[in-house]
Amino acid sequence: MPHIQLPEGLPGILGPMAFSPQTTIPLNGLAEVLLRTNASESLTQGERELIASYTSRRNDCFFCSTSHGAAADYLLGRENEVVAKTWANPDTAPVSDKMKALLAIAGSVQQGGKHVTHEQITAAREQGASDRDIHDTVLIAAAFCMYNRYVDGLATWAPHDAEVYADMGEALATRGYVHYNETQPA
Amino acid sequence: MPHIQLPEGLPGILGPMAFSPQTTIPLNGLAEVLLRTNASESLTQGERELIASYTSRRNDCFFCSTSHGAAADYLLGRENEVVAKTWANPDTAPVSDKMKALLAIAGSVQQGGKHVTHEQITAAREQGASDRDIHDTVLIAAAFCMYNRYVDGLATWAPHDAEVYADMGEALATRGYVHYNETQPA
Repeated sequence: MPHIQLPEGLPGILGPMAFSPQTTIPLNGLAEVLLRTNASESLTQGERELIASYTSRRNDCFFCSTSHGAAADYLLGRENEVVAKTWANPDTAPVSDKMKALLAIAGSVQQGGKHVTHEQITAAREQGASDRDIHDTVLIAAAFCMYNRYVDGLATWAPHDAEVYADMGEALATRGYVHYNETQPA
Repeated sequence: MPHIQLPEGLPGILGPMAFSPQTTIPLNGLAEVLLRTNASESLTQGERELIASYTSRRNDCFFCSTSHGAAADYLLGRENEVVAKTWANPDTAPVSDKMKALLAIAGSVQQGGKHVTHEQITAAREQGASDRDIHDTVLIAAAFCMYNRYVDGLATWAPHDAEVYADMGEALATRGYVHYNETQPA
């Protein structure tokens, strides 16, 4: 049972988001600009969702890791099992060497900002990571340390049906965050 | 030295915020709606800044704990030393019993969402905390787990002059977050 009275039937973050519409606007706005971009000079949308899912998994947040994992799987090709393999071990996952170095930075951010080392930054640069790549990786990982705590700190409810998350992942990937709530069935 | 090339002379979060204006809009928007409200039915602006500062202190983020501590001191009366006493021990700090219970929840959120216990929620309710109080406490603590990691995960620079933070705290408290950057001298 959630720690506060939330609208029923809304999974994960959607319950507190409905409870508090005024904070939901910037929370969704941040997810939209951070995750829903394919800017040619930086990370793809699939790579961004993968960092979000990986950070959430390290924070043991079932709802966020599974929903953003489903979005990453949709974008990266479910048959490649990139999310499951990254959760198991990012160093041997089927991602680029640049992504491996950035996932290591995200893992440090999850522990705390000061855990990021100069060695990790140097390793990422050697694999071609730009300032924008590093900035966005740090902010995505930091932001999911917030979303994960919002979801679990209020003890929200989450479904456990894989199909639900597959649909959610496709919706997040294709329709995005700002309009997601509007498009949910009542 | 910061991990990425940031505009010079901007302390703490202001460097990455200038680097990435598109993410700065929702980041400032969230701080504004979460911290800059005195809604009669919930936490005061000073109490909100105190939760922000306490969480940041627990995350060992010098810039955020000091700047939001200065905002809380400005709002709660610097002579009362509420921030320093809360950092030292929230259980004996000169705050209400409701705030003591909410600071305990914020402390758990800082460790991870699942650290919040039913006992902590019950204790807060017994001191009169509403669903809104609990929601806002969890989200403020969660949000500062993001801001702190953004600031330290990029190894930003921070001044160490107490006067600078006193001015910053007053500006954050009175002018707020959305317009803060605009009002800074170039």
